[in-house]
Amino acid sequence: MTAIYKDDGFALHTDKYQINMTQVYWADNMHRRKAVFELFFRKLPFGNGYAVFAGLERVVHYLKEFRFTANDLAYLREEGYKEEYLDFLKTIRFTGTVRSMKEGELVFANEGIMRIEAPLAEGQLVETALLNIVNYQTLIATKASRMKQIVGEEVAMEFGTRRAQEMDAAIWGTRAAYLAGFDATSNVRAGKLFGIPTAGTHAHAMVQAYRDEYTAFRKYASEHVDCVFLVDTYDTLKSGVPNAIRVAKEFGDRIRFKGIRLDSGDLAYLSKTARKMLDEAGFPDAKIYASNDLDETTILNLKAQDAKIDVWGIGTKLITAYDQPALGAVYKLIAIEDEHGRMVDTIKISSNPEKVSTPGMKRVFRIVNRDNRMAEGDYIALEHEEPQREARLKMFHPVHTHIAKFVTDFEARELYETIFEDGTLTYELPKIEEIRAFVQANLDLLWDEYKRALNPVEYPVDLSQACWDKKMRMIRSVLAKVEANEEREGK
Amino acid sequence: MTAIYKDDGFALHTDKYQINMTQVYWADNMHRRKAVFELFFRKLPFGNGYAVFAGLERVVHYLKEFRFTANDLAYLREEGYKEEYLDFLKTIRFTGTVRSMKEGELVFANEGIMRIEAPLAEGQLVETALLNIVNYQTLIATKASRMKQIVGEEVAMEFGTRRAQEMDAAIWGTRAAYLAGFDATSNVRAGKLFGIPTAGTHAHAMVQAYRDEYTAFRKYASEHVDCVFLVDTYDTLKSGVPNAIRVAKEFGDRIRFKGIRLDSGDLAYLSKTARKMLDEAGFPDAKIYASNDLDETTILNLKAQDAKIDVWGIGTKLITAYDQPALGAVYKLIAIEDEHGRMVDTIKISSNPEKVSTPGMKRVFRIVNRDNRMAEGDYIALEHEEPQREARLKMFHPVHTHIAKFVTDFEARELYETIFEDGTLTYELPKIEEIRAFVQANLDLLWDEYKRALNPVEYPVDLSQACWDKKMRMIRSVLAKVEANEEREGK
Repeated sequence: MTAIYKDDGFALHTDKYQINMTQVYWADNMHRRKAVFELFFRKLPFGNGYAVFAGLERVVHYLKEFRFTANDLAYLREEGYKEEYLDFLKTIRFTGTVRSMKEGELVFANEGIMRIEAPLAEGQLVETALLNIVNYQTLIATKASRMKQIVGEEVAMEFGTRRAQEMDAAIWGTRAAYLAGFDATSNVRAGKLFGIPTAGTHAHAMVQAYRDEYTAFRKYASEHVDCVFLVDTYDTLKSGVPNAIRVAKEFGDRIRFKGIRLDSGDLAYLSKTARKMLDEAGFPDAKIYASNDLDETTILNLKAQDAKIDVWGIGTKLITAYDQPALGAVYKLIAIEDEHGRMVDTIKISSNPEKVSTPGMKRVFRIVNRDNRMAEGDYIALEHEEPQREARLKMFHPVHTHIAKFVTDFEARELYETIFEDGTLTYELPKIEEIRAFVQANLDLLWDEYKRALNPVEYPVDLSQACWDKKMRMIRSVLAKVEANEEREGK
Repeated sequence: MTAIYKDDGFALHTDKYQINMTQVYWADNMHRRKAVFELFFRKLPFGNGYAVFAGLERVVHYLKEFRFTANDLAYLREEGYKEEYLDFLKTIRFTGTVRSMKEGELVFANEGIMRIEAPLAEGQLVETALLNIVNYQTLIATKASRMKQIVGEEVAMEFGTRRAQEMDAAIWGTRAAYLAGFDATSNVRAGKLFGIPTAGTHAHAMVQAYRDEYTAFRKYASEHVDCVFLVDTYDTLKSGVPNAIRVAKEFGDRIRFKGIRLDSGDLAYLSKTARKMLDEAGFPDAKIYASNDLDETTILNLKAQDAKIDVWGIGTKLITAYDQPALGAVYKLIAIEDEHGRMVDTIKISSNPEKVSTPGMKRVFRIVNRDNRMAEGDYIALEHEEPQREARLKMFHPVHTHIAKFVTDFEARELYETIFEDGTLTYELPKIEEIRAFVQANLDLLWDEYKRALNPVEYPVDLSQACWDKKMRMIRSVLAKVEANEEREGK
């Protein structure tokens, strides 16, 4: 039976095969070779037309702190790893260069979000944690942005902690939702850690604890100036709303009666009826908060029914990305130093054609039309290419290559920032309010056709001619090698 | 702009309304009243016939450490909470009594999994974190158990870290999977923290790094005795399997050729063909590992096609509970001390009848037939009832009350253990291997009809007559009060 160790670091938050492969590299003296990995996903989630990148902040903390603790090494020793290898692991820090999109950048399928250039051992060991962080946070930022498009000018609040997939998801998920456009969270720890506005008044339990709704509301109003009363503990229209109005009238100017919250039942009918009751009672400014398994489809339908809801409290469906709870981002080796110190490109072939990786070091540009200030698409070029210097750019679909257009009066904005340079953090993490503003500015570059929730148009993500040619050349070369192997085997 | 504080405790990992309600209780001198909360869910996930309770270990750590740190209080001060209230929060520790099912207990809809008896303020403040922990861990333990029923005697490994919803989910999810019957995890940190067996060999990246599959396999074999080769980097049957066999032959007794891993393509066809190739090459003991978005349905179908898979590597679909990524457990006030120091029962009514809570302090018993040692169902009785002393027990459906049976020769096993007694931890957390064995013993009590993956029979969870009568009486009394309120309002 293995001993139980203290949870004192994240270096072992990785798949065992990373540790085993690294051992091979180390034993073969390959571990210092410069390797380049790219992190990207192959398919946008939720049928959405774009994704919102999130996760960089935690990735930065993780890479900065990356080291194997004494406990980590003791555990690995017990698992049978060699002492010499453990001595090597003990010395590892992250010494690589990270080029990444900024948090809040809009990102699309098959373009590198982050690029890690590092000694092979380091690049390999950090893969799992980077994917774990970026996959979830990007998924939730995307879901939140999608929901916020439907919510529109009204207020969207994140209420999902109790249904989140454990504690980290609650915290980092609500941060992702906020940076993507949500307005507040119920999670107080997230407020403390990230400066996100928090919201919340009382639950059914308080009404039950006083065993009388009117008394409960009065007690709340005696202690809090801002009052939102939850009105569905017993009966929304017969008891909850009348008691809320009664207390609001009794307390008058001593409180700010901000509204009522509906948490069950027919939200369309209840909100319309409650709206009338509040208006007739002289509280036209009291807002109606609604919650109960809301998602973008429910919200759209409630709006179509002219539900009178001012504030949308969204929990489970957001914080778990209920209809697609995983983003499939991957992390692929795209180039490696050979035995002569030269960088060579690498590719992964697959029987699923969409799983073939695009080899070589690349940069991603957003091509913005200078005339209308709207994005024409993204353009992936080889490292040395300078599309911003071209007068006329051919953009063609990387699979259906006959779909092509020429752009002329454009700006090519490079999407990568340098985050770490040879292990040194050179990037200042922005404040979350800046990230929010950045998301909004990015969305403004996109035509509505890319942003609509249902059947958005596919945003172009194209390869430069040189990049496309290289990919095709390498696919042919690998396939020729496979054939040669087959012949050798005599099959 | 709010300051950013250090992440130094979990007391603020709660919804803001808990803090605001607690302020009301404190201001009204209600905060010390004894309150009883019950944690339960209303519907089994995945259409499964049972759930596997997990999460108690983290709940115990959380309650033991429960306190507001100086940073927590500084943040709340900045948010405008009163100094006197902060002084009160500063003193709070968890002083309650927790009665809970043990981790690994099988649990069903509408029965209390945990019961928290504590001063009202404490019981209220811990709600959110308890739900966050228990909802996720129980969800994953249940999903894993369901998958393991289909996998059967073969090996099931948890490979989902990169797709998990942030880091805590990866760690606690894989623990939940292991206790419910999975055999190993790829996550090394989970191995270190919980003593779970870890597994993994190498990834596509290693094959790419050597730019030659045969070389990569040889290098791996030079460094590791136990070898499983991933064979789909270029072409599974033309390149991967032949290279694996070639290296296995070359290394002979110097390695243990444990098998090959398939990670893409048609797993049924590839596994059958690879099996033949391995057998013909003289490696009948080499196992075939398979992964690639597997879930219980895919596994069942692969088995129906006679796929030759020995080890199932399961990732995304398990660790996110992909087809239902949230369990809806709730936490309801069932009794509270009144102003005279007497405990009174509380109920929550809802327009959704299944959301009406069952009032009062209760215990849950598993009724086991002494003759065949199989479970007859669960029986929820009021605290003072002693069903184990009855000679003849009437068990009836709590909604369709005409569905009833009498049991005679039975054992009534109480499912609650005392975990905390007045704030003191009195329970020794079991080793994870004990929990695994406990799950298995619990499953053995259940007829197969309750355990099958598709359309299981509904396991009886019944209320005692006294418990049922009390619930009906309280519903009538609340409804009468609502009607009276309506008349008063003159509607």
